[in-house]
Amino acid sequence: MQPQYQMGYDRAITVFSPDGRLYQVEYAREAVKRGTTAVGIKCSEGVVLIVDKRVTSRLLEPVSIEKIFKIDAHIGVASSGLVGDARSLVDRARVESQINRVSYNEPINVEILAKKLCDHMQTYTQFGGARPYGTALLIAGVSDGEARLFETDPSGTLLEYKATGIGTGRPAVIKTFEDEYQEDADFSGAIRLGIKALHAATEGKLDVSAIEIGVVSIETGEFRKMEKDEVKAYVDQFEE
Amino acid sequence: MQPQYQMGYDRAITVFSPDGRLYQVEYAREAVKRGTTAVGIKCSEGVVLIVDKRVTSRLLEPVSIEKIFKIDAHIGVASSGLVGDARSLVDRARVESQINRVSYNEPINVEILAKKLCDHMQTYTQFGGARPYGTALLIAGVSDGEARLFETDPSGTLLEYKATGIGTGRPAVIKTFEDEYQEDADFSGAIRLGIKALHAATEGKLDVSAIEIGVVSIETGEFRKMEKDEVKAYVDQFEE
Amino acid sequence: MQPQYQMGYDRAITVFSPDGRLYQVEYAREAVKRGTTAVGIKCSEGVVLIVDKRVTSRLLEPVSIEKIFKIDAHIGVASSGLVGDARSLVDRARVESQINRVSYNEPINVEILAKKLCDHMQTYTQFGGARPYGTALLIAGVSDGEARLFETDPSGTLLEYKATGIGTGRPAVIKTFEDEYQEDADFSGAIRLGIKALHAATEGKLDVSAIEIGVVSIETGEFRKMEKDEVKAYVDQFEE
Amino acid sequence: MQPQYQMGYDRAITVFSPDGRLYQVEYAREAVKRGTTAVGIKCSEGVVLIVDKRVTSRLLEPVSIEKIFKIDAHIGVASSGLVGDARSLVDRARVESQINRVSYNEPINVEILAKKLCDHMQTYTQFGGARPYGTALLIAGVSDGEARLFETDPSGTLLEYKATGIGTGRPAVIKTFEDEYQEDADFSGAIRLGIKALHAATEGKLDVSAIEIGVVSIETGEFRKMEKDEVKAYVDQFEE
Amino acid sequence: MQPQYQMGYDRAITVFSPDGRLYQVEYAREAVKRGTTAVGIKCSEGVVLIVDKRVTSRLLEPVSIEKIFKIDAHIGVASSGLVGDARSLVDRARVESQINRVSYNEPINVEILAKKLCDHMQTYTQFGGARPYGTALLIAGVSDGEARLFETDPSGTLLEYKATGIGTGRPAVIKTFEDEYQEDADFSGAIRLGIKALHAATEGKLDVSAIEIGVVSIETGEFRKMEKDEVKAYVDQFEE
Amino acid sequence: MQPQYQMGYDRAITVFSPDGRLYQVEYAREAVKRGTTAVGIKCSEGVVLIVDKRVTSRLLEPVSIEKIFKIDAHIGVASSGLVGDARSLVDRARVESQINRVSYNEPINVEILAKKLCDHMQTYTQFGGARPYGTALLIAGVSDGEARLFETDPSGTLLEYKATGIGTGRPAVIKTFEDEYQEDADFSGAIRLGIKALHAATEGKLDVSAIEIGVVSIETGEFRKMEKDEVKAYVDQFEE
Amino acid sequence: MQPQYQMGYDRAITVFSPDGRLYQVEYAREAVKRGTTAVGIKCSEGVVLIVDKRVTSRLLEPVSIEKIFKIDAHIGVASSGLVGDARSLVDRARVESQINRVSYNEPINVEILAKKLCDHMQTYTQFGGARPYGTALLIAGVSDGEARLFETDPSGTLLEYKATGIGTGRPAVIKTFEDEYQEDADFSGAIRLGIKALHAATEGKLDVSAIEIGVVSIETGEFRKMEKDEVKAYVDQFEE
Repeated sequence: MQPQYQMGYDRAITVFSPDGRLYQVEYAREAVKRGTTAVGIKCSEGVVLIVDKRVTSRLLEPVSIEKIFKIDAHIGVASSGLVGDARSLVDRARVESQINRVSYNEPINVEILAKKLCDHMQTYTQFGGARPYGTALLIAGVSDGEARLFETDPSGTLLEYKATGIGTGRPAVIKTFEDEYQEDADFSGAIRLGIKALHAATEGKLDVSAIEIGVVSIETGEFRKMEKDEVKAYVDQFEE
Repeated sequence: MQPQYQMGYDRAITVFSPDGRLYQVEYAREAVKRGTTAVGIKCSEGVVLIVDKRVTSRLLEPVSIEKIFKIDAHIGVASSGLVGDARSLVDRARVESQINRVSYNEPINVEILAKKLCDHMQTYTQFGGARPYGTALLIAGVSDGEARLFETDPSGTLLEYKATGIGTGRPAVIKTFEDEYQEDADFSGAIRLGIKALHAATEGKLDVSAIEIGVVSIETGEFRKMEKDEVKAYVDQFEE
Repeated sequence: MQPQYQMGYDRAITVFSPDGRLYQVEYAREAVKRGTTAVGIKCSEGVVLIVDKRVTSRLLEPVSIEKIFKIDAHIGVASSGLVGDARSLVDRARVESQINRVSYNEPINVEILAKKLCDHMQTYTQFGGARPYGTALLIAGVSDGEARLFETDPSGTLLEYKATGIGTGRPAVIKTFEDEYQEDADFSGAIRLGIKALHAATEGKLDVSAIEIGVVSIETGEFRKMEKDEVKAYVDQFEE
Repeated sequence: MQPQYQMGYDRAITVFSPDGRLYQVEYAREAVKRGTTAVGIKCSEGVVLIVDKRVTSRLLEPVSIEKIFKIDAHIGVASSGLVGDARSLVDRARVESQINRVSYNEPINVEILAKKLCDHMQTYTQFGGARPYGTALLIAGVSDGEARLFETDPSGTLLEYKATGIGTGRPAVIKTFEDEYQEDADFSGAIRLGIKALHAATEGKLDVSAIEIGVVSIETGEFRKMEKDEVKAYVDQFEE
Repeated sequence: MQPQYQMGYDRAITVFSPDGRLYQVEYAREAVKRGTTAVGIKCSEGVVLIVDKRVTSRLLEPVSIEKIFKIDAHIGVASSGLVGDARSLVDRARVESQINRVSYNEPINVEILAKKLCDHMQTYTQFGGARPYGTALLIAGVSDGEARLFETDPSGTLLEYKATGIGTGRPAVIKTFEDEYQEDADFSGAIRLGIKALHAATEGKLDVSAIEIGVVSIETGEFRKMEKDEVKAYVDQFEE
Repeated sequence: MQPQYQMGYDRAITVFSPDGRLYQVEYAREAVKRGTTAVGIKCSEGVVLIVDKRVTSRLLEPVSIEKIFKIDAHIGVASSGLVGDARSLVDRARVESQINRVSYNEPINVEILAKKLCDHMQTYTQFGGARPYGTALLIAGVSDGEARLFETDPSGTLLEYKATGIGTGRPAVIKTFEDEYQEDADFSGAIRLGIKALHAATEGKLDVSAIEIGVVSIETGEFRKMEKDEVKAYVDQFEE
Repeated sequence: MQPQYQMGYDRAITVFSPDGRLYQVEYAREAVKRGTTAVGIKCSEGVVLIVDKRVTSRLLEPVSIEKIFKIDAHIGVASSGLVGDARSLVDRARVESQINRVSYNEPINVEILAKKLCDHMQTYTQFGGARPYGTALLIAGVSDGEARLFETDPSGTLLEYKATGIGTGRPAVIKTFEDEYQEDADFSGAIRLGIKALHAATEGKLDVSAIEIGVVSIETGEFRKMEKDEVKAYVDQFEE
């Protein structure tokens, strides 16, 4: 007999397979698994996002490979999977954040923003005429003085992690974190752990110029992307 | 001859099979059967909802796996099946409840809310362009001083139970309840029975940190999720 | 050659088969044939509706298995087939009845209501994008001092009967009625005959707690569901 | 080679077959051929419509099998084929008639009404998303002091006949009329001929209680359904 | 290899075949070829339209088989192919003519009307959701003191002829005209030639009562259908 | 293996083939290749359009086979391919020209008009629900005192030529032009060359009555179709 | 087993393949690979765009093969792939630029424009009813005194390059640039390198009349297409 995915259950998002699965959502997850690796880590000082952009040509301007996005003053996002889909979700996140500021005169709660994005992604798994988003996001932010780190996937599932990873290197990243993650690390420790995890995920082929780091601090409540020098310092330190 | 489900009757919600079945609805039920186990129990003091969240990694924040949701002051819901679908139904339930408060200045009747949700789910089994909801709900609440416990399924069928379960462990849960359920138990007895049923359903691999309990009390007419300590007390008691 | 239903004529409601049949309507009738048995009987005093709800678990609240619905003061309905579809039709019937009261300040004529429901069901057999209703109704009521008993089916066909049945047990019910039905029976006689027919239909496995009876009286012009005690009296009488 | 109708030309109303046929329209005609037989006869006094309703169970109220419908004071219709489709067309005819009365303050011309119905039926043979009507109508009426008798079919074709029949028995009916029809018959003669034709069509199994007769008179300009007694008189006369 | 028309290029009007053909348009032309024969002839006095209605039963009112339609005072149309489609186009032509009268206070130019109809027919060959018209028209009229005779086909192509024919008998008609047509004939000569062509087309089975003639005269600028007697005179003359 | 076009990549305009082609556009080009031949030639005095209308019957009014259309005072168009599609594009071109006159009070620039038409044709190659246009146009005009000659094809590609041809005879026409075209010819020379090219394309079966010539002059800035006599003079000249 | 692309995953943009790919996007990239070669190079003075238009016939006006487009005073674009699609995107880019000028009274930022175009292209990879754009763009411009060079592809991915190429010759172009590109070259050096790369890509068959060059200068902030003479000078220089 032909494997089940040949029987057409995997051709439309409006069709369940006999065992209750939505193949198109699972295939969209495959698009994420083919993406660049990104990690997120909560620590005592806030949340850290680190991505390895895999720059392959000296002709490319590395800055144009955007994998970490500032959403609002207090929220940043790392993405993996289809680049265009990620940009579309990032645009949506920014608009939602601004709507919140205009409507309620205060920054949007990180969890509420994450849920809104997931609700949006869920509709693409239930209605015909479109495909699910082929992208996963790590959403890092500070609300009510607390650091938050959410992971979304194409089904619209939302989970909060202490530390996690998305993209090709996820298994290696998770293994590193399960062995070595400590909640009480400071930014410096968290970044070192993140670089180590990425290093494991890329089998040692880490390129400093392709590493991007974003941090959101509990103290300031601000998200920022690190400058090249700061990043370099951490990577150099790691390589020693 | 090929089995009937290969002949295309199971590819769209707008098509009956020759024996009058809607395969897509049945497949959506399979999605529920793959979900985490949740139980609901009516007792002399109100209704109890208990779920086993199956937390598998220490990196995950258990609180982010939400399986019990407060809908209104007097109503709570436990879900099993597709996580995004459940959240979508929960959102709808909350809005319906608020509409009732605004329109009639009183809390919505539990049964009326349950019917509204089921009517909504039924339309996804009759019209094309979408798939049925891949989720089941236990709806617990108090109306007119009476405890109510409803179970919905993807077809939009609504049934009221004294005690029931949804998700992977349903057969084991139902067996436990048919043998041991007593209507005159108090909260304490009902919770003990529910934990026992979950224990049977998970073949003894019950993880206390992953258990979530919600109760709605006839006396106060309020739904609340139990604190970790309360839950722990019941689980410890059970393990003895 | 493959049987005709494999050739695709049965995949959409917008397609006739070469012999002028609408297979999807016929398959919807199969959904009705899989439903619980309901009977309707006209008698000298009015109309009687009786259903056997097939309650299979002691955990279930029998009252939540609704198979007889009050539509308006003078009209009741018994259903068989897909539960969610029946509820959707019942909602529609109630709204139509209230519209009539608001517009004309009088109760809707039973036949007019029945036709409106059938017109609605017919459209689901002619236009794409949805499936036919998988449900049949017995509509009992009193208009102009006369008892009326209509039966609808998924095609939107409307017929009036002296006595009839829908659901799994229909053949046994019809046989009983053709042999024994008498127009001049009173309520008591009609109910006894109905229980006998249901008994024949369920091959003797009639469960008193699962029997529901609705009556509409020419004298009062009112429809009401019987209390448990009344029902029990008739069943006990039958069992003797 | 497979027969042409297996090649998909018969799956949608928007597709011609290679020989320029619309199979779905032809299949809809099959639905008419499976319907009860109805005859229409013009005579010197007006037009007669007679149907054999094929009542098969003593439990059925024969009056509920409606095959002759009054459309307006001066127009009646007999139908054959899908019952729900016929009712839908009858509703439309009644509305068109009332619109004419409201707009022009006079009864609608029979031919104009017949054309309007056919135009409507034609659209269901050209546009996707629906199926053709599975019903034929005999439209009898009086306009400008003249008796008119039209026959429609699922393609929207409109023809006027002196005498004709639709449904299962059409071939036998037409044969009888071609042999014996006389334009100068009076109502009485026309009805006798119609009953004879129906008798031939049903192979002698004519059931008096199931015969329905409608007449529209040139003299009065009124359409009416005959009372049971009148019908019985004609049938008795025939049986002698 | 399978013939190309089995490969699906002929299933939708929105699909070209590999050799650039629109099969559905060609199949619609087949529907025209199955239609009754109609001829149109320009002559020194105006234009003549003649059709053979093929009346096959004495029960039919020949007048109800309409194949020649008056569109406006100065324009008439003969049709062949699907009857309902023709009526739909005729309705459209009449409305366009009236719009012109209302908008510009003058009769519509024959060529402009013909182009409008063809533009309309073309859209049914380019957009999905409907099928092409299965009908051809001969459009005869007088504009600016000149006789015009247009032929349309399902593709929306418009051609003007001195003399032409549509329907089953077209090849025989064209042959007759190519051999014998003379531009300077008067009405009488043109009608005789037309009847001869029809006679050739029907292989000599011409039925006088089924012949319909319409003429539009340059002198009067009026279109009219001939009375039975006039027609009979020409046919009798021909038969001698 | 089956040829690629059997694998369904050629069934819809919304689907690319694995090698990045749009088969439906290529098939539409085939429709053009089956069309009558048309040539366009720029010369020192303006632009010439010549078509061979292939009139095949003496019954046809040659003038009704329109292949050259005046769009505006300064623009003319020759078409090849589906006749109805060409007329639809010509209508659109005329409307665009008039809109320009009304909006800006000046004649539309030839190139802008050509681009507008191509933009319109491109949308029919990207969106579902319709097919591409099966027609090519030669657009000749004068703007800013310069002669312009554009060729469009079904993909919406726009190219400007010194001399070119469309339709069946294109290869022969292009060969003639590549060998003999001279930019400094006057109208007379250009027309002679065009007739020679058409003669080559039709393998010598050129019919003078079927030749149509349109010219747009730099001097007058006007487009006009030549009278029969003028055309005859050129053809006679050629035949000598 | 059949190759995966035969299994239907490549038939619609709304369907992922089992390995998470969107075949229709990949096929659209093939359309780009079949396009003419275009190169873009950043240098110390600004950005250079060079295309080889592959003019194949002396009858064609080379200027009508537009591959470099001015979008706004400070932005130019080179395209490769489907010509009609490119023009559609160019139109959109021009409108976006003008909207920015009107709304904010300043030129649009090059990166913002590039993102807007990519967002638009992304929607054609997620929603049904259309196909992705079969075109790639090089977007060159100056914003905030800085030279920018972006490359888009059918998926809506946006990358910034120092030097890059699109179309058939991309591999040869990239190889040349990786070996020889120097950031500090001036316009003259950059153009020489670009011509060299194109020469490599076309295997030496470079036609000077078919080369088009566009430059945007940091100093002036203006984009302009070079005159024929300027281009010739560079090509001549190269050929020496």
